[in-house]
Amino acid sequence: MTDDPRASSPETGDEHPRNPPAVAVVDAQTPGNVGTIARAMKNFGFSELLLVDPPELDPDGEAYGFAGHAREDVLPNAREVSFDHLVENYHTVGTTAITNEDDQHHVRFPFTTPAELADRLERVEADTVVVFGREGVGLTNEELARLDEVCSIPASAEYPVLNLGQAATITLYELRTIALDPGDVQLPDVERVRADEPSLERLYDQWAALLEEINHPEEKRAKTMRMLRRLHGRADPTVQEVTTLLGVLRRATERPDREEN
Amino acid sequence: MTDDPRASSPETGDEHPRNPPAVAVVDAQTPGNVGTIARAMKNFGFSELLLVDPPELDPDGEAYGFAGHAREDVLPNAREVSFDHLVENYHTVGTTAITNEDDQHHVRFPFTTPAELADRLERVEADTVVVFGREGVGLTNEELARLDEVCSIPASAEYPVLNLGQAATITLYELRTIALDPGDVQLPDVERVRADEPSLERLYDQWAALLEEINHPEEKRAKTMRMLRRLHGRADPTVQEVTTLLGVLRRATERPDREEN
Repeated sequence: MTDDPRASSPETGDEHPRNPPAVAVVDAQTPGNVGTIARAMKNFGFSELLLVDPPELDPDGEAYGFAGHAREDVLPNAREVSFDHLVENYHTVGTTAITNEDDQHHVRFPFTTPAELADRLERVEADTVVVFGREGVGLTNEELARLDEVCSIPASAEYPVLNLGQAATITLYELRTIALDPGDVQLPDVERVRADEPSLERLYDQWAALLEEINHPEEKRAKTMRMLRRLHGRADPTVQEVTTLLGVLRRATERPDREEN
Repeated sequence: MTDDPRASSPETGDEHPRNPPAVAVVDAQTPGNVGTIARAMKNFGFSELLLVDPPELDPDGEAYGFAGHAREDVLPNAREVSFDHLVENYHTVGTTAITNEDDQHHVRFPFTTPAELADRLERVEADTVVVFGREGVGLTNEELARLDEVCSIPASAEYPVLNLGQAATITLYELRTIALDPGDVQLPDVERVRADEPSLERLYDQWAALLEEINHPEEKRAKTMRMLRRLHGRADPTVQEVTTLLGVLRRATERPDREEN
């Protein structure tokens, strides 16, 4: 059964230094996939790459070619280790595209999705490694049986088997929340900056002035204004957008160009 | 400003047939990336691939080599179209790694994340296309200015630029919820099947019996039982796991092997 790492984690109070999981690749056949994984690691804040039975990684070859800026650190710092080393030193999460669909089999069930894994690891202090298997067959049953838990990506039942590099990319993307501090994310998961209400009200006033100016049928004005409010409301317009639109509407209402003629 | 497609969608009531967005790739340089995108499309339930100024896709080359099973349908069914065709016929979502960080610039702001985009498109009926740009520079400002909205993947501020194939993979993964019906997902985003409470109670009773049998200090038993409940509670054990553990604990308590000696 799953070994819960929280059971053995010391009570350290609120202190919780970020310690992103290591990433291990077992018996990769294609140097390009190792490079792709290294690049995703750097994109999402991971640095420790462990390779079990890796292919040769020629500095002029595909691994470095696919690694982007990770060719400067993640890839050259990768360490070759044994599968035993992973099992003995880390809380291990195996990844697989092929799961058992019920709870009668332990090897590939229960599994977490990458999103669930991110939620859970957020609250765990333990050295963790996420383990990816070889192209084609992934991790074997024998390998998965030695790992602490199993993670699988939700995908089409018709074709759930992802390419190794793509599976690792998605998994590391989902785990970014435990690897990157919010301040280190280029695009924080924040709401867009909606314009303040007084600005929006000026916008609606200007719309109303325009409707009056163009002699929009009086009995339709309230309904049209409701439509406009809903339309803009759903779009969460920014200050800049409201300002621009307000300028346009004001010109359309007041037609300063005509006065000059 | 963003053109909200819901504004023009007809009132069709609750009927909402799945109509996954099309995927467009503009001026890709590398056939392998087109193949990678085709594979991710098939993994996550997309089928309509549109190519603007594509490289040659040799059936014996990298595009087909990287496409997995998508070499049978998504890739051979891809259509070559113009950028104008996208703008004129679809609600267009441009993707970019480089955004403007404030609301003073329209071209790359506001942006949504892929997860936000999935939430929003879930409630929209309109022909939508998600547009990916060329390797290296992505979509140009001129191209983005003609698209309806912008989407960007949260990534490390130190190195936010994803490879084209990896960016498309993550975006399509996040959009799977609007492309795949829940029944078509190999791994539904469901909770694991937790064993029923009576089974868990039998497990705790057996733990208690074991503590008594091994003369665990009486003053510590309540605390130990609380720890065991918490430990198992967090792990959401399955019926099979509880059954197995119960068997082990019963043997440890009753030691039938000893009785036989």
